Amino acid sequence: MPHTLVLLRHGNSEWNQQNLFTGWVDVRLSELGLGEAARAGELLAAEGVLPDVLHTSVLSRAIQTANIALDVADRLWIPVRRSWRLNERHYGALQGLDKAETLEKYGPEQFQLWRRSFDVPPPALADDAEYSQVGDPRYAELADDELPRTECLKDVIARMLPYWEQDIIPDLAAGKTVLVTAHGNSLRALVKHLDGISDADIAELNIPTGIPLVYELDDDFRPTGPGRYLDPEAAAAGAAAVAAQGKK
Amino acid sequence: MPHTLVLLRHGNSEWNQQNLFTGWVDVRLSELGLGEAARAGELLAAEGVLPDVLHTSVLSRAIQTANIALDVADRLWIPVRRSWRLNERHYGALQGLDKAETLEKYGPEQFQLWRRSFDVPPPALADDAEYSQVGDPRYAELADDELPRTECLKDVIARMLPYWEQDIIPDLAAGKTVLVTAHGNSLRALVKHLDGISDADIAELNIPTGIPLVYELDDDFRPTGPGRYLDPEAAAAGAAAVAAQGKK
Repeated sequence: MPHTLVLLRHGNSEWNQQNLFTGWVDVRLSELGLGEAARAGELLAAEGVLPDVLHTSVLSRAIQTANIALDVADRLWIPVRRSWRLNERHYGALQGLDKAETLEKYGPEQFQLWRRSFDVPPPALADDAEYSQVGDPRYAELADDELPRTECLKDVIARMLPYWEQDIIPDLAAGKTVLVTAHGNSLRALVKHLDGISDADIAELNIPTGIPLVYELDDDFRPTGPGRYLDPEAAAAGAAAVAAQGKK
Repeated sequence: MPHTLVLLRHGNSEWNQQNLFTGWVDVRLSELGLGEAARAGELLAAEGVLPDVLHTSVLSRAIQTANIALDVADRLWIPVRRSWRLNERHYGALQGLDKAETLEKYGPEQFQLWRRSFDVPPPALADDAEYSQVGDPRYAELADDELPRTECLKDVIARMLPYWEQDIIPDLAAGKTVLVTAHGNSLRALVKHLDGISDADIAELNIPTGIPLVYELDDDFRPTGPGRYLDPEAAAAGAAAVAAQGKK
């Protein structure tokens, strides 16, 4: 029996529009992003890809995206699970900084290292910094050393994979079509795992916003083929736009 | 330690506006109802009543209300549980009928009996009727004899109370502020239980839409005092409007 997994990256956010590093800062969707979420719901409904259960991060922009998409697809009623393990990569001291200014100040090499290095995190965010998550009630149940102050993609994989194995796979095993609504880097981490992408090659993978990416999985929860975007043309254009980020 | 329980009846729906019996038919909020939901979120935020966990029915109008209110109150990230046991009363063969026409056709005595009798349900809805829930995927896990074809308030209490005891009370016991976003009759059933209202007197209780009703509970999960509407004036006006329903 094939298992169906649907990945959905949240739509454009207010800080995407302002070209700021976001990470764990809890910004909302922009008007553009709200529209992308509705479009994602239309694609799900049109293709008959109907989720039975939803997993989201604890960041509002992913939750807004899921709420809107499921509203449009008439699946508001499905069970919901949320976890910080699906959050965006913590961007450390870069959180809140302008991407173009950062590129100009540190140069393209350092900038691209911070954005796409597999195992080099940005400098840590101070606990008393404006955009720190220390003290945020949504993370109250995390041990202090579980709460990131910065992350590289390797760190994201390390905290995301246990959720995949212990929380998402059981839903797939139960025959449910699973929708995961999350972020550029938590979804890159999952796709890296699913598609067996190397540490080097993952730097080149960009996931577009707001376009459902559907995997069919075998009984070992490995893909039976490549993931399929429900709107391939828009997905290609969106991935190119992500790759170009940071340029003024 | 006091426990905080917040009850929220969904806002005005499309069928409320058309004055139709709704029950388990999955209609959406009207524009008015969307605004009521946002106002509920403002009240929660302004009063500092911040839910730690959400319980909803599986009907879209309650879920929309919760999603909007939590968005406004900046609590989108809290865990969510849904159950059919929090659904509106199943209105049987009245589902989809015009309230004023029904009043005219059957007379005020029969009309009021169907609306407010404790233990007389309306005629059952046929399984092949337009507004039947037989075959609806959201109820796929219910045994056939669990899926109602009509309900009186007594029936609602019987299927709601196990959820209160087994699912909501444990969250309260864990010290969480619990938000229950549901319906006129599932909330009347819960308030009847909490306030120890008699089978006769519950007929007079009307819960207004979109205004959070806050209970403080003791360690036996009994109210330490009367429930408190976060906007008492609007609540009184809203309850009077519910009482007047069915009149042209």
